[in-house]
Amino acid sequence: MNQAKLKETLYSVIFGTETPAGKWFDLFLIVAIVMSVGALMAESLTGHSKTYYQVVRGIEWVFTIVFTIEYVARIYCSPNPRSYITSFYGVIDLLSIIPTYLSLFIPGVNILLAVRIMRFLRIFRILKLARYLTEANTLLRSMNQARRKIAVFFLSVVILATIFGALMYVVEGPGNGFSSIPKSIYWTIVTITTVGYGDITPQTSLGQFIAAIAMLMGYSILAVPTGIFTAELAQEIQRERMSVLCPNCTKAGHERDAHYCRECGSDLHP
Amino acid sequence: MNQAKLKETLYSVIFGTETPAGKWFDLFLIVAIVMSVGALMAESLTGHSKTYYQVVRGIEWVFTIVFTIEYVARIYCSPNPRSYITSFYGVIDLLSIIPTYLSLFIPGVNILLAVRIMRFLRIFRILKLARYLTEANTLLRSMNQARRKIAVFFLSVVILATIFGALMYVVEGPGNGFSSIPKSIYWTIVTITTVGYGDITPQTSLGQFIAAIAMLMGYSILAVPTGIFTAELAQEIQRERMSVLCPNCTKAGHERDAHYCRECGSDLHP
Amino acid sequence: MNQAKLKETLYSVIFGTETPAGKWFDLFLIVAIVMSVGALMAESLTGHSKTYYQVVRGIEWVFTIVFTIEYVARIYCSPNPRSYITSFYGVIDLLSIIPTYLSLFIPGVNILLAVRIMRFLRIFRILKLARYLTEANTLLRSMNQARRKIAVFFLSVVILATIFGALMYVVEGPGNGFSSIPKSIYWTIVTITTVGYGDITPQTSLGQFIAAIAMLMGYSILAVPTGIFTAELAQEIQRERMSVLCPNCTKAGHERDAHYCRECGSDLHP
Amino acid sequence: MNQAKLKETLYSVIFGTETPAGKWFDLFLIVAIVMSVGALMAESLTGHSKTYYQVVRGIEWVFTIVFTIEYVARIYCSPNPRSYITSFYGVIDLLSIIPTYLSLFIPGVNILLAVRIMRFLRIFRILKLARYLTEANTLLRSMNQARRKIAVFFLSVVILATIFGALMYVVEGPGNGFSSIPKSIYWTIVTITTVGYGDITPQTSLGQFIAAIAMLMGYSILAVPTGIFTAELAQEIQRERMSVLCPNCTKAGHERDAHYCRECGSDLHP
Repeated sequence: MNQAKLKETLYSVIFGTETPAGKWFDLFLIVAIVMSVGALMAESLTGHSKTYYQVVRGIEWVFTIVFTIEYVARIYCSPNPRSYITSFYGVIDLLSIIPTYLSLFIPGVNILLAVRIMRFLRIFRILKLARYLTEANTLLRSMNQARRKIAVFFLSVVILATIFGALMYVVEGPGNGFSSIPKSIYWTIVTITTVGYGDITPQTSLGQFIAAIAMLMGYSILAVPTGIFTAELAQEIQRERMSVLCPNCTKAGHERDAHYCRECGSDLHP
Repeated sequence: MNQAKLKETLYSVIFGTETPAGKWFDLFLIVAIVMSVGALMAESLTGHSKTYYQVVRGIEWVFTIVFTIEYVARIYCSPNPRSYITSFYGVIDLLSIIPTYLSLFIPGVNILLAVRIMRFLRIFRILKLARYLTEANTLLRSMNQARRKIAVFFLSVVILATIFGALMYVVEGPGNGFSSIPKSIYWTIVTITTVGYGDITPQTSLGQFIAAIAMLMGYSILAVPTGIFTAELAQEIQRERMSVLCPNCTKAGHERDAHYCRECGSDLHP
Repeated sequence: MNQAKLKETLYSVIFGTETPAGKWFDLFLIVAIVMSVGALMAESLTGHSKTYYQVVRGIEWVFTIVFTIEYVARIYCSPNPRSYITSFYGVIDLLSIIPTYLSLFIPGVNILLAVRIMRFLRIFRILKLARYLTEANTLLRSMNQARRKIAVFFLSVVILATIFGALMYVVEGPGNGFSSIPKSIYWTIVTITTVGYGDITPQTSLGQFIAAIAMLMGYSILAVPTGIFTAELAQEIQRERMSVLCPNCTKAGHERDAHYCRECGSDLHP
Repeated sequence: MNQAKLKETLYSVIFGTETPAGKWFDLFLIVAIVMSVGALMAESLTGHSKTYYQVVRGIEWVFTIVFTIEYVARIYCSPNPRSYITSFYGVIDLLSIIPTYLSLFIPGVNILLAVRIMRFLRIFRILKLARYLTEANTLLRSMNQARRKIAVFFLSVVILATIFGALMYVVEGPGNGFSSIPKSIYWTIVTITTVGYGDITPQTSLGQFIAAIAMLMGYSILAVPTGIFTAELAQEIQRERMSVLCPNCTKAGHERDAHYCRECGSDLHP
């Protein structure tokens, strides 16, 4: 009985956000995640001073132990541990701590650093449960609505980039930096997304002419995802407004920040 | 009689998408196209090892023969072979296989590589018949609606780029990389599309001032195609919604994912 | 009387677009303008071969004489020559021909080339009178509606660029390419418009941090002119639709490409 | 009594915009601010000629004294001096003059230059009171409405940039310019905002592949702030229209530039 109560309390603190303790726990976790990510960045800046490196490693170990305790506690108090462990955030939680332990046995493996920084994703879980829920949901619903249109768009971009890439490979050739079709496709994507590093640039007149056409096409293509998302979001915002009904006269279409009904003046949120 | 039936069956498999065999054929074709494009890319990466080159060439020949058989089958089973051969995809199908045969007689011609990669366009035909039809149609209808506005926009960009290009040619001159008006126009397009390679950059103060103005104009101009497309797409989405009428009360304006009428609750898609 | 008729005929051909002769004249003018601009570009490509240069100069003289005759004819047949000469296109017409004559007396002056290329602007006059009128008008009306919002936006960009520029001048200093505040402002505009030449880049950690913030702000700022223009254009398109009234039942809100009234089925354009 | 009247007159001139004197004062102030910012830019261009430097310093002192007098006058005539001094613009006003006096004691401190240029922000106060008020307000209201959505968006960009940065640090490594995670994050932000300096570029095939994905994601992400802002602004413009009610028939939804009611023809702004 005592243990069941402990589990329940732990659950409301760790997974919940309503209680003051739960809110403090979330805040503490955000601070810990941000600080540990900062320590990881500091680690990548070292290499020179040995003392500095050991301080940073020490901090990393503190946070790893904190996150390990948190992970065990989550498994312990979860009503269904298996489903937590196999969930997206369960995997992220595990990946946040494993690499530090692995680095004891296989030192100097850089890839573990990249895995550890995935813990930054845990921020999303905490925010997901908090006040940004509605806003994030509106954005996600719009993206979901636009999913297929965006898939069609991406496929077109990839096919376009391949054809332009092959064309530039033939026109410019390996002599001017377009050393293979994959590299030319890389150049095309750099160009039509308007990033334009300038590490590979067309040197021949014909190549520059084709590049100019690719840019202008990229220009128009840029309009497509923006247009899709905007149009869907506008619908979503309008739908949101429509869903606020006056409890007195059932009139819909109120502004999101309205307090009283436009039509009959009664309180919208009694 | 037997041959007529064979033709009919072949037609439903090759051109159709309803039958299971037709779906499998489409899937096989997508895989074959993607793999053969991959082989073309691998070919451009070679040049060093002779064995590797011969393997890649072997793969290319296998796919060319497969596509040749498919091409002949399409002509054979098509109810109107002439219109198929002269259609857009008929030409693409032919261009996908011809260069490999030509390379037997005229080896080492790079341009044939670019022609062969056009086979990637064949993906669109298969998708066109499949489930992305509606989404692609909405995008295309919006583009079609915006056609003339985009033509006006492009003409303005070209004229603007020419005048800015001539101005920069005079201000910066050949000494700073602006060696001719066409090259200056290339620079202007690189700049106003915000690609910005940095292979040619203004060196004089006046040139940098004019460049800054060109950038800010490009910034505003970027808004035009996005604006046009978004506004048209929003109309298109609204029109789509309007076209869902309730079969019971004829009320329009339902959400696209609605199952029941907002007004009378009857099933929208009985 | 004879001369009055000649004037009238000339006017309908040169200024008008309704008659077949007027259409042919417009088409001829477009071809002449495009060809003469092409000759100007070719001129900037020369410098090596003397023969080539003389051919290009000859072409330029032919077009200059053609445009001079056209200019005189426009003055002659215009009902109000003074208002034509002082109009925007009257000035452009004059500027298109003057520099070629001036080049006889002051040879080798490059700035005359830039002035001559202004003749490309004459294309707009011809198109203005033609079928793209409506589309261009919708775009211009939207821009006009958004005029003040865009002015507020530009002022903010300039002030922001100045403050960021001064900050980067202090942080990075002349040693890293930020040699003066105007040059730093140039860098800031190159950055927040996402052009990013890379001719000047921050070298210090603090400079890169400030640059990253400037980029993310530029990112959000990019949304402003697009948003303004799109919102205005959407209104404009809706207004256009609203203006198509059914002559039978006066119902508004028809699609732009509708032929029959949604409500009563009568012809919208009888 | 006399002093109270002086205060009142001063207040209406300095803080007000209705009286002709107030308008002239605003205009004078805008000119003075723009000229003094110009002088600051000129100062950063010097360093060579001593005479030139002294002229620029002289101009700076003139403006500093003018702004000091203005600052004292504002405190003097303000009905509540304390709230003025602690307000945003009060602080900016003080920061505009303090550095010049400080430079007497601590010469050659560059950071004072950056502080002084903050006086450019004072332009906003003057414009705020003037005719651009409504336009700026519509933009600000839209931004305010979108505040939370933009916060969610920025957080996502930062987390995404960190993970991509760590990945590129591991894949490319210090040898190719990705010398630390913070520097890799800087590269990621340069890439996904499509700025693309080209000072750091991926050299390995895997790095270029990841970069291409980052670009395409940046491409889609670019759509989010634009979409948010546009959708909010469209709502804001529609709301503005809705708020123009006909005083005769109370019909809403008039165009912003309409003078007469669409429905009953009576004057909207009597």
